[in-house]
Amino acid sequence: LKSDSLSSEESSANARGLTHFHGVGETLEGYRGKSLALLKRFGLSVGQQIRIVSKDRTETLGLLLPRYHGADDEHIVLKLKSGYNIGVNIASIDSIQVVEEEGKTGESSSFQGQVASKSIKSKEERVSGQEKVVSLLSTGGTIASKIDYVTGAVHPALSAEDLYAAIPELGRIADVRPELLFSIFSEDMEAKHWQTIAEKAIKKAQSGSDGVVIMSGTDILGILSAALSFALLGIDVPVVCVGSQRSSDRPSSDSALNLLGAVRFASTSEVPGVFVAMHASTSDDSIAIHLGTRVRKNHTSRRDAFQSIDIEPFAFVRGDELEYIGRPLQEEQKQKSIATKAAIDANLEFRTRFDSSVSLVKFYPGFNPRILDFLLEDLHARGIILEGTGLGHVSSKTVSKISELTKEGVFVGMTSQCIWGSVDLNVYRTGRDLLQAGVTPLANMLAETALAKLSWALGNFSSDLIKEIMTTNLCGEIVPRLVL
Amino acid sequence: LKSDSLSSEESSANARGLTHFHGVGETLEGYRGKSLALLKRFGLSVGQQIRIVSKDRTETLGLLLPRYHGADDEHIVLKLKSGYNIGVNIASIDSIQVVEEEGKTGESSSFQGQVASKSIKSKEERVSGQEKVVSLLSTGGTIASKIDYVTGAVHPALSAEDLYAAIPELGRIADVRPELLFSIFSEDMEAKHWQTIAEKAIKKAQSGSDGVVIMSGTDILGILSAALSFALLGIDVPVVCVGSQRSSDRPSSDSALNLLGAVRFASTSEVPGVFVAMHASTSDDSIAIHLGTRVRKNHTSRRDAFQSIDIEPFAFVRGDELEYIGRPLQEEQKQKSIATKAAIDANLEFRTRFDSSVSLVKFYPGFNPRILDFLLEDLHARGIILEGTGLGHVSSKTVSKISELTKEGVFVGMTSQCIWGSVDLNVYRTGRDLLQAGVTPLANMLAETALAKLSWALGNFSSDLIKEIMTTNLCGEIVPRLVL
Repeated sequence: LKSDSLSSEESSANARGLTHFHGVGETLEGYRGKSLALLKRFGLSVGQQIRIVSKDRTETLGLLLPRYHGADDEHIVLKLKSGYNIGVNIASIDSIQVVEEEGKTGESSSFQGQVASKSIKSKEERVSGQEKVVSLLSTGGTIASKIDYVTGAVHPALSAEDLYAAIPELGRIADVRPELLFSIFSEDMEAKHWQTIAEKAIKKAQSGSDGVVIMSGTDILGILSAALSFALLGIDVPVVCVGSQRSSDRPSSDSALNLLGAVRFASTSEVPGVFVAMHASTSDDSIAIHLGTRVRKNHTSRRDAFQSIDIEPFAFVRGDELEYIGRPLQEEQKQKSIATKAAIDANLEFRTRFDSSVSLVKFYPGFNPRILDFLLEDLHARGIILEGTGLGHVSSKTVSKISELTKEGVFVGMTSQCIWGSVDLNVYRTGRDLLQAGVTPLANMLAETALAKLSWALGNFSSDLIKEIMTTNLCGEIVPRLVL
Repeated sequence: LKSDSLSSEESSANARGLTHFHGVGETLEGYRGKSLALLKRFGLSVGQQIRIVSKDRTETLGLLLPRYHGADDEHIVLKLKSGYNIGVNIASIDSIQVVEEEGKTGESSSFQGQVASKSIKSKEERVSGQEKVVSLLSTGGTIASKIDYVTGAVHPALSAEDLYAAIPELGRIADVRPELLFSIFSEDMEAKHWQTIAEKAIKKAQSGSDGVVIMSGTDILGILSAALSFALLGIDVPVVCVGSQRSSDRPSSDSALNLLGAVRFASTSEVPGVFVAMHASTSDDSIAIHLGTRVRKNHTSRRDAFQSIDIEPFAFVRGDELEYIGRPLQEEQKQKSIATKAAIDANLEFRTRFDSSVSLVKFYPGFNPRILDFLLEDLHARGIILEGTGLGHVSSKTVSKISELTKEGVFVGMTSQCIWGSVDLNVYRTGRDLLQAGVTPLANMLAETALAKLSWALGNFSSDLIKEIMTTNLCGEIVPRLVL
């Protein structure tokens, strides 16, 4: 078993809504190849409560979920009572039974872990004065320049009128209130900009906005959304980062559709937190909403360059409709240790500072560990995120150097340059040597997310709390795996 | 149109072989979703000669190829007369016609660009004294340790007898001659080891081996195969790098199957060059053969962690059978400029040296350009490979620093941390500033491949040739794209 997604959606929506959402006749959506053949063989449909009996006779009970377009054909995905979504390898399956109708009714009453689906509210609702307010903060990037191009506007003249003129559909979704924060090349964005954006988003949420959308360049969208995820811990509205690719795959721009998807999610979702909205495929029918801590730009130019790593996207916006796949691990957040809890109680105050004395170092064959000396002695590094090979390895001579740094009080965290999967320093001797050298393994946290989190942790908390904060899942940055 | 794969397979195999290989009834293998629906609508089968008329009235003639398991559903793949495989976006297609039977016969006679498939030679052939000799060089890593574990051998006692005892099937494929080169943790492997391995492989090829298999740790398998691709330019046998994952996905080890696939390819393939053999999926039915310059470990622990980037795998070994998908761009190699050609004529001599004064630097928000000063002044860097964001960007202050380095004669090449897709420094102002600062864009070369190539180029050629060598495709490290 592997955990494919996040914890339960505690809404009142039920399996009927799910079936409706996926449309009549698409009862095994997203399944293909071997997994599709298996489900057909047992006559199953998405939305059914099923019991899987594995070859080793263990039983798993859950709701059959649809799969994300592009997923493999070797797993079927269930939502357990616990709220976890798990992928079951079909090779391990002996048989599958549909749980009886009466059992289903019985189970469902106490079953809160359903996938929710709801439509954007009707035009009437909005006209009747219930229109949602979405703050649109612009920081530069292709998306802003494209909108400027269409409107003919010159910075900083991004008015609501210009915006509605360029993308008329926006006004039919929400009362969008644009504001130019700054206009920089996204590759020049640093920790100080993250703080400015975070504080503006808090201000907007506290002054009545139902959601906040942040337009930025795509090059740094992943680390920006990660940084904001920590700085905005506890925020009670959705905050959605959005950009536009160069769109070399087609002559048309993806900026309008990405922005529409972001504003729809920001105005409609009842789930607060930080997300990224970008094309789910090269076609224009679906915008993926990624969890802010688990998203990466994996292609230089395609419009569907952004992917959720080690989990499925959090939600999709398709036309007028919003489909939730997962939700942040709020239960797990509540289980974090007393000390961390005391220090990071987001109800007390937001922590928006970032410390710039952090570095990301990618290891490669021939890496000279004297680079680490330089980071310590000349740049006065307080924290370093390593991108090791495989399960999180570096050369033996680098290990020795690292132990000198940790003795000086530098936090050194290990991530993997493989991108997918988790570091594990308990498998090989090199890994155990790294643990002895004081390296903190960061599970399956993305390297850029780890860098943003370390910058945030050092900016807001005392040194003795850093290791605990870095290894505690606060907002989905560590995906738990049930069994691998 | 996008180029999905490599140049033509100039074997005598034809479409009949292809159809046979993919099995009766699987006439649209690998297609799914939208592309499958389109092909069905036009009543097409893999192996047919078809003419695609696009919406802008251009026509494309080619052989309909199967798709790689897991490919998207938005392209269909054709093999053109030129030998290139191209992916045609189905959104661009107006209509498709099957080319007439008589036309097909006529076309086929001059059409050499077919997918080849052939079986491993029969037992009789081998028994009759035609058995192929494969040299098996061990350098350490999980695969070697697992085989040691099974054999109970202690380094350096890796004998043929031990190996056959552990994996009896090996002896039925080829006369495998094992040799322990060294036994190190793969993360400690450096340029000097690449040279030792390359020189040993050359010696084996020159003394009668039909193929060479190199066992190594998976952490550095991608950069090792890239380094060997350059050092072994012009070698006339297949050289296959192979490893074993920890295989946390299943209790069984993947080492025997990977090794069997590597030895089958090394003993059977008529295509020389450097490759990587690893599981194609989490099941045990297919070993992917990746081109040595285009492969990356994209998961920390799964057995199918290795993926070909921006192209499909070069070949697959399935049981006794070998299926070619592409082949290295030997034509393009021949078109390289006169100066490069004079310097790198692999028929004259192998170039096996590597220069250690190279670094790989991954850019991130907040990156301190003083790190580049340190690389120049303290580590006396002769070459730096940058991993920029998106299309190949770094912050403005980093651009200024880079121009200081290039003025000192340091080669600075740009790759993308997106992994998939190509750098392009002509889209945004930051990119054009980088060109002005003397940065060399390296198209879609993988960062690790670029590092290995730069180390090799600096180790064997004079400074005035480096830029030309780095931007010339020598062995598939740059994938040409027809139209994007």
